[in-house]
Amino acid sequence: MNFRVRAATKEDCKDISRMIMELAVYEKMPDQVEISHKELERDGFCQNPFFQCLVAEVPEEQKSKEGFTVVGYALYFYTYSTWRGRSVYLEDLYVMPEFRGNGIGKGLLCKVAEVGKKEECVRLQLSVLDWNTPSRDFYAAKGAQDLTVSEGWHFIRFDGQNLDNLANEAPKD
Amino acid sequence: MNFRVRAATKEDCKDISRMIMELAVYEKMPDQVEISHKELERDGFCQNPFFQCLVAEVPEEQKSKEGFTVVGYALYFYTYSTWRGRSVYLEDLYVMPEFRGNGIGKGLLCKVAEVGKKEECVRLQLSVLDWNTPSRDFYAAKGAQDLTVSEGWHFIRFDGQNLDNLANEAPKD
Repeated sequence: MNFRVRAATKEDCKDISRMIMELAVYEKMPDQVEISHKELERDGFCQNPFFQCLVAEVPEEQKSKEGFTVVGYALYFYTYSTWRGRSVYLEDLYVMPEFRGNGIGKGLLCKVAEVGKKEECVRLQLSVLDWNTPSRDFYAAKGAQDLTVSEGWHFIRFDGQNLDNLANEAPKD
Repeated sequence: MNFRVRAATKEDCKDISRMIMELAVYEKMPDQVEISHKELERDGFCQNPFFQCLVAEVPEEQKSKEGFTVVGYALYFYTYSTWRGRSVYLEDLYVMPEFRGNGIGKGLLCKVAEVGKKEECVRLQLSVLDWNTPSRDFYAAKGAQDLTVSEGWHFIRFDGQNLDNLANEAPKD
Protein backbone atom coordinates (compact mmCIF):
# COMPACT_ATOMS: atom_id res chain seq x y z
CA MET A 1 0.00 0.00 0.00
CA ASN A 2 1.22 3.48 -0.91
CA PHE A 3 1.04 6.12 1.76
CA ARG A 4 2.66 9.43 2.47
CA VAL A 5 3.41 10.97 5.87
CA ARG A 6 3.31 14.77 5.91
CA ALA A 7 2.87 17.65 8.35
CA ALA A 8 -0.80 18.36 9.05
CA THR A 9 -2.31 21.63 7.87
CA LYS A 10 -5.24 23.53 9.31
CA GLU A 11 -7.41 21.90 6.62
CA ASP A 12 -6.66 18.45 8.08
CA CYS A 13 -8.25 19.26 11.45
CA LYS A 14 -11.64 17.80 10.52
CA ASP A 15 -9.95 14.52 9.58
CA ILE A 16 -7.84 14.57 12.74
CA SER A 17 -10.90 15.31 14.87
CA ARG A 18 -12.76 12.42 13.20
CA MET A 19 -9.89 10.03 13.99
CA ILE A 20 -9.57 11.28 17.60
CA MET A 21 -13.21 10.25 17.98
CA GLU A 22 -12.62 6.90 16.23
CA LEU A 23 -9.81 6.19 18.67
CA ALA A 24 -12.02 7.11 21.64
CA VAL A 25 -14.83 4.87 20.35
CA TYR A 26 -12.31 2.04 19.98
CA GLU A 27 -11.28 2.66 23.60
CA LYS A 28 -14.99 2.71 24.58
CA MET A 29 -14.76 6.28 25.88
CA PRO A 30 -16.30 8.51 23.15
CA ASP A 31 -17.98 10.74 25.76
CA GLN A 32 -14.53 11.80 26.98
CA VAL A 33 -13.83 13.82 23.83
CA GLU A 34 -14.62 17.46 24.48
CA ILE A 35 -12.69 19.13 21.70
CA SER A 36 -13.57 19.50 18.04
CA HIS A 37 -11.73 20.53 14.89
CA LYS A 38 -12.24 24.16 15.94
CA GLU A 39 -10.08 23.80 19.06
CA LEU A 40 -7.51 21.83 17.04
CA GLU A 41 -7.35 24.62 14.45
CA ARG A 42 -7.00 27.26 17.17
CA ASP A 43 -4.45 25.42 19.34
CA GLY A 44 -2.30 23.74 16.69
CA PHE A 45 -2.06 26.48 14.10
CA CYS A 46 -1.35 29.60 16.11
CA GLN A 47 1.91 31.46 16.70
CA ASN A 48 3.07 29.28 19.61
CA PRO A 49 1.19 26.07 18.83
CA PHE A 50 0.29 23.72 21.69
CA PHE A 51 0.95 20.68 19.49
CA GLN A 52 2.29 19.49 16.14
CA CYS A 53 0.70 16.82 13.99
CA LEU A 54 1.62 14.48 11.15
CA VAL A 55 -0.95 12.73 8.98
CA ALA A 56 -0.73 9.62 6.81
CA GLU A 57 -2.43 9.93 3.46
CA VAL A 58 -3.22 7.29 0.83
CA PRO A 59 -3.87 7.91 -2.88
CA GLU A 60 -7.47 8.59 -3.96
CA GLU A 61 -7.79 5.09 -5.47
CA GLN A 62 -7.04 3.52 -2.06
CA LYS A 63 -9.44 5.69 -0.08
CA SER A 64 -11.41 4.22 2.81
CA LYS A 65 -14.92 2.75 2.51
CA GLU A 66 -16.30 6.14 3.61
CA GLY A 67 -14.11 8.00 1.14
CA PHE A 68 -11.30 9.24 3.41
CA THR A 69 -7.71 9.55 2.19
CA VAL A 70 -6.25 10.82 5.49
CA VAL A 71 -6.11 7.52 7.37
CA GLY A 72 -3.75 8.03 10.33
CA TYR A 73 -2.18 10.70 12.49
CA ALA A 74 0.54 11.27 15.07
CA LEU A 75 0.00 14.21 17.41
CA TYR A 76 3.01 15.34 19.42
CA PHE A 77 4.58 18.29 21.22
CA TYR A 78 7.93 19.33 22.57
CA THR A 79 8.78 18.87 26.23
CA TYR A 80 11.95 19.42 28.24
CA SER A 81 14.16 17.44 30.56
CA THR A 82 16.19 19.53 32.99
CA TRP A 83 18.88 16.84 32.85
CA ARG A 84 18.99 16.16 29.12
CA GLY A 85 17.19 19.00 27.38
CA ARG A 86 14.81 18.92 24.43
CA SER A 87 12.40 16.01 24.14
CA VAL A 88 9.40 15.12 22.05
CA TYR A 89 6.22 13.58 23.44
CA LEU A 90 3.89 11.49 21.29
CA GLU A 91 0.36 12.03 22.60
CA ASP A 92 -1.60 10.03 20.01
CA LEU A 93 -0.65 7.53 17.31
CA TYR A 94 -3.59 6.17 15.31
CA VAL A 95 -4.21 4.33 12.06
CA MET A 96 -7.73 3.51 10.82
CA PRO A 97 -8.43 -0.22 11.32
CA GLU A 98 -8.79 -1.04 7.60
CA PHE A 99 -5.33 0.43 6.90
CA ARG A 100 -3.42 -1.38 9.65
CA GLY A 101 -0.67 -3.88 8.93
CA ASN A 102 0.85 -1.76 6.18
CA GLY A 103 3.59 -0.05 8.17
CA ILE A 104 1.68 3.23 8.48
CA GLY A 105 1.87 3.33 12.29
CA LYS A 106 5.57 2.61 12.19
CA GLY A 107 6.00 5.23 9.47
CA LEU A 108 4.29 7.86 11.63
CA LEU A 109 6.32 6.91 14.72
CA CYS A 110 9.62 6.98 12.84
CA LYS A 111 8.76 10.32 11.25
CA VAL A 112 8.09 11.84 14.69
CA ALA A 113 11.51 10.52 15.77
CA GLU A 114 13.11 12.06 12.68
CA VAL A 115 11.41 15.43 13.21
CA GLY A 116 12.45 15.33 16.88
CA LYS A 117 16.07 14.58 16.01
CA LYS A 118 16.09 17.54 13.62
CA GLU A 119 15.04 19.71 16.58
CA GLU A 120 17.90 18.18 18.59
CA CYS A 121 15.55 16.22 20.86
CA VAL A 122 17.30 13.47 22.81
CA ARG A 123 14.16 11.60 23.88
CA LEU A 124 10.87 10.47 22.40
CA GLN A 125 8.34 9.68 25.12
CA LEU A 126 4.76 8.49 25.28
CA SER A 127 2.33 6.69 27.59
CA VAL A 128 0.45 3.42 27.26
CA LEU A 129 -2.16 1.70 29.39
CA ASP A 130 -0.95 -1.40 31.20
CA TRP A 131 -3.62 -3.63 29.59
CA ASN A 132 -2.64 -2.48 26.09
CA THR A 133 -0.22 -5.35 25.49
CA PRO A 134 -0.03 -4.99 21.68
CA SER A 135 1.16 -1.39 22.00
CA ARG A 136 3.51 -2.15 24.89
CA ASP A 137 5.05 -4.99 22.89
CA PHE A 138 5.29 -2.82 19.76
CA TYR A 139 7.30 -0.15 21.58
CA ALA A 140 9.39 -2.62 23.58
CA ALA A 141 10.34 -4.45 20.37
CA LYS A 142 11.75 -1.17 19.07
CA GLY A 143 13.89 -0.76 22.18
CA ALA A 144 11.77 1.58 24.31
CA GLN A 145 12.12 1.47 28.09
CA ASP A 146 9.06 1.25 30.32
CA LEU A 147 10.01 3.82 32.98
CA THR A 148 7.07 3.00 35.21
CA VAL A 149 8.39 -0.55 35.50
CA SER A 150 12.12 0.20 35.55
CA GLU A 151 12.21 3.38 37.66
CA GLY A 152 8.76 3.60 39.26
CA TRP A 153 7.45 6.79 37.67
CA HIS A 154 3.78 7.61 38.33
CA PHE A 155 1.56 10.08 36.49
CA ILE A 156 -0.15 12.68 38.62
CA ARG A 157 -3.00 14.91 37.46
CA PHE A 158 -4.86 17.92 38.80
CA ASP A 159 -8.02 18.96 36.99
CA GLY A 160 -11.47 20.39 37.60
CA GLN A 161 -12.07 21.78 41.07
CA ASN A 162 -8.65 20.66 42.35
CA LEU A 163 -6.92 22.70 39.69
CA ASP A 164 -9.15 25.70 40.38
CA ASN A 165 -8.33 25.44 44.09
CA LEU A 166 -4.59 25.53 43.37
CA ALA A 167 -4.93 28.50 41.04
CA ASN A 168 -7.01 30.38 43.59
CA GLU A 169 -4.29 29.93 46.21
CA ALA A 170 -1.51 31.34 44.03
CA PRO A 171 0.55 34.07 45.73
CA LYS A 172 -0.39 37.55 44.55
CA ASP A 173 2.16 39.49 42.50
CA MET B 1 9.42 34.41 55.48
CA ASN B 2 8.87 36.83 52.62
CA PHE B 3 9.20 35.48 49.15
CA ARG B 4 8.07 36.43 45.70
CA VAL B 5 7.22 34.14 42.79
CA ARG B 6 7.93 35.61 39.36
CA ALA B 7 8.58 34.53 35.79
CA ALA B 8 12.21 33.61 35.24
CA THR B 9 14.35 35.74 32.96
CA LYS B 10 17.40 34.74 30.93
CA GLU B 11 19.53 36.15 33.76
CA ASP B 12 18.09 33.55 36.16
CA CYS B 13 19.43 30.59 34.16
CA LYS B 14 22.63 30.30 36.22
CA ASP B 15 20.54 30.07 39.40
CA ILE B 16 18.14 27.59 37.80
CA SER B 17 21.05 25.49 36.53
CA ARG B 18 22.58 25.50 40.04
CA MET B 19 19.30 24.30 41.56
CA ILE B 20 18.81 21.62 38.87
CA MET B 21 22.18 20.26 40.01
CA GLU B 22 21.25 20.57 43.70
CA LEU B 23 18.11 18.55 43.01
CA ALA B 24 20.11 15.89 41.15
CA VAL B 25 22.65 15.69 44.00
CA TYR B 26 19.77 15.28 46.45
CA GLU B 27 18.47 12.45 44.24
CA LYS B 28 22.01 10.99 44.15
CA MET B 29 22.22 11.30 40.36
CA PRO B 30 24.37 14.40 39.68
CA ASP B 31 26.12 12.70 36.75
CA GLN B 32 22.79 12.59 34.91
CA VAL B 33 22.74 16.36 34.37
CA GLU B 34 24.04 17.12 30.91
CA ILE B 35 22.72 20.61 30.38
CA SER B 36 24.02 23.92 31.69
CA HIS B 37 22.69 27.46 31.91
CA LYS B 38 23.67 27.91 28.27
CA GLU B 39 21.17 25.32 27.05
CA LEU B 40 18.54 26.74 29.40
CA GLU B 41 19.11 30.22 27.98
CA ARG B 42 18.90 28.91 24.42
CA ASP B 43 15.87 26.63 24.90
CA GLY B 44 13.76 28.68 27.30
CA PHE B 45 14.23 32.16 25.92
CA CYS B 46 13.83 31.74 22.18
CA GLN B 47 10.86 32.49 19.92
CA ASN B 48 9.09 29.17 20.53
CA PRO B 49 10.49 28.27 23.95
CA PHE B 50 10.70 24.59 24.94
CA PHE B 51 9.79 25.44 28.53
CA GLN B 52 8.63 28.17 30.88
CA CYS B 53 10.00 28.77 34.36
CA LEU B 54 9.00 30.52 37.57
CA VAL B 55 11.46 31.36 40.32
CA ALA B 56 10.97 32.07 44.02
CA GLU B 57 13.05 34.95 45.34
CA VAL B 58 13.69 36.10 48.91
CA PRO B 59 14.82 39.59 50.00
CA GLU B 60 18.57 40.24 50.20
CA GLU B 61 18.49 40.13 54.03
CA GLN B 62 17.13 36.56 53.93
CA LYS B 63 19.63 35.26 51.38
CA SER B 64 21.01 31.73 51.68
CA LYS B 65 24.26 30.83 53.48
CA GLU B 66 26.04 30.99 50.13
CA GLY B 67 24.45 34.34 49.27
CA PHE B 68 21.67 33.25 46.91
CA THR B 69 18.32 35.06 46.77
CA VAL B 70 16.73 32.84 44.08
CA VAL B 71 15.86 29.84 46.23
CA GLY B 72 13.33 27.77 44.28
CA TYR B 73 12.00 27.15 40.80
CA ALA B 74 9.13 25.53 38.92
CA LEU B 75 9.90 24.52 35.33
CA TYR B 76 6.91 23.66 33.15
CA PHE B 77 5.68 23.50 29.57
CA TYR B 78 2.40 23.26 27.71
CA THR B 79 1.12 19.92 26.49
CA TYR B 80 -2.10 18.84 24.79
CA SER B 81 -4.84 16.30 25.38
CA THR B 82 -6.74 15.30 22.24
CA TRP B 83 -9.80 14.76 24.46
CA ARG B 84 -9.63 17.86 26.64
CA GLY B 85 -7.23 20.31 25.00
CA ARG B 86 -4.60 22.54 26.59
CA SER B 87 -2.69 21.23 29.57
CA VAL B 88 0.35 22.26 31.57
CA TYR B 89 3.07 19.86 32.69
CA LEU B 90 5.25 20.57 35.72
CA GLU B 91 8.65 19.03 35.04
CA ASP B 92 10.53 20.23 38.15
CA LEU B 93 9.47 21.79 41.44
CA TYR B 94 12.35 22.57 43.81
CA VAL B 95 13.01 24.64 46.92
CA MET B 96 16.45 24.84 48.55
CA PRO B 97 16.48 22.77 51.77
CA GLU B 98 17.09 25.71 54.11
CA PHE B 99 14.01 27.50 52.74
CA ARG B 100 11.55 24.61 52.99
CA GLY B 101 8.50 24.68 55.28
CA ASN B 102 7.66 28.27 54.36
CA GLY B 103 5.04 27.63 51.70
CA ILE B 104 7.41 28.37 48.82
CA GLY B 105 6.84 25.01 47.09
CA LYS B 106 3.10 25.41 47.41
CA GLY B 107 3.38 29.00 46.15
CA LEU B 108 5.27 27.84 43.04
CA LEU B 109 2.79 25.00 42.39
CA CYS B 110 -0.24 27.26 42.77
CA LYS B 111 1.31 29.90 40.53
CA VAL B 112 1.86 27.32 37.77
CA ALA B 113 -1.83 26.38 38.14
CA GLU B 114 -2.82 30.04 37.91
CA VAL B 115 -0.66 30.65 34.83
CA GLY B 116 -2.07 27.48 33.26
CA LYS B 117 -5.66 28.55 33.93
CA LYS B 118 -4.94 31.90 32.28
CA GLU B 119 -3.87 29.96 29.18
CA GLU B 120 -7.15 27.99 29.42
CA CYS B 121 -5.40 24.77 30.45
CA VAL B 122 -7.75 22.18 31.92
CA ARG B 123 -5.09 19.95 33.46
CA LEU B 124 -1.88 20.29 35.45
CA GLN B 125 0.17 17.11 35.27
CA LEU B 126 3.49 15.90 36.64
CA SER B 127 5.33 12.70 37.54
CA VAL B 128 6.68 11.36 40.81
CA LEU B 129 8.74 8.31 41.72
CA ASP B 130 6.86 5.62 43.62
CA TRP B 131 9.30 5.73 46.58
CA ASN B 132 8.87 9.51 46.94
CA THR B 133 6.10 9.28 49.52
CA PRO B 134 6.36 12.87 50.81
CA SER B 135 5.75 14.24 47.30
CA ARG B 136 3.01 11.73 46.52
CA ASP B 137 1.25 12.62 49.77
CA PHE B 138 1.69 16.36 49.11
CA TYR B 139 -0.03 16.13 45.73
CA ALA B 140 -2.70 13.67 46.90
CA ALA B 141 -3.59 15.98 49.80
CA LYS B 142 -4.30 18.70 47.24
CA GLY B 143 -6.66 16.41 45.34
CA ALA B 144 -4.41 15.10 42.55
CA GLN B 145 -5.17 11.71 41.01
CA ASP B 146 -2.44 9.10 40.57
CA LEU B 147 -3.23 7.93 37.03
CA THR B 148 -0.69 5.11 37.13
CA VAL B 149 -2.60 3.62 40.05
CA SER B 150 -6.16 4.48 38.96
CA GLU B 151 -5.93 3.91 35.20
CA GLY B 152 -2.69 1.99 34.68
CA TRP B 153 -0.71 4.50 32.62
CA HIS B 154 2.94 3.66 31.98
CA PHE B 155 5.71 5.97 30.80
CA ILE B 156 7.59 4.83 27.73
CA ARG B 157 10.87 6.32 26.50
CA PHE B 158 13.04 6.02 23.43
CA ASP B 159 16.50 7.56 23.59
CA GLY B 160 20.07 7.04 22.41
CA GLN B 161 20.52 4.38 19.75
CA ASN B 162 16.85 3.33 19.85
CA LEU B 163 15.76 6.84 18.97
CA ASP B 164 18.37 7.07 16.22
CA ASN B 165 17.13 3.77 14.79
CA LEU B 166 13.56 5.06 14.61
CA ALA B 167 14.61 8.30 12.98
CA ASN B 168 16.69 6.41 10.41
CA GLU B 169 13.69 4.32 9.42
CA ALA B 170 11.41 7.31 8.78
CA PRO B 171 9.66 7.21 5.38
CA LYS B 172 11.26 9.51 2.85
CA ASP B 173 9.28 12.57 1.70
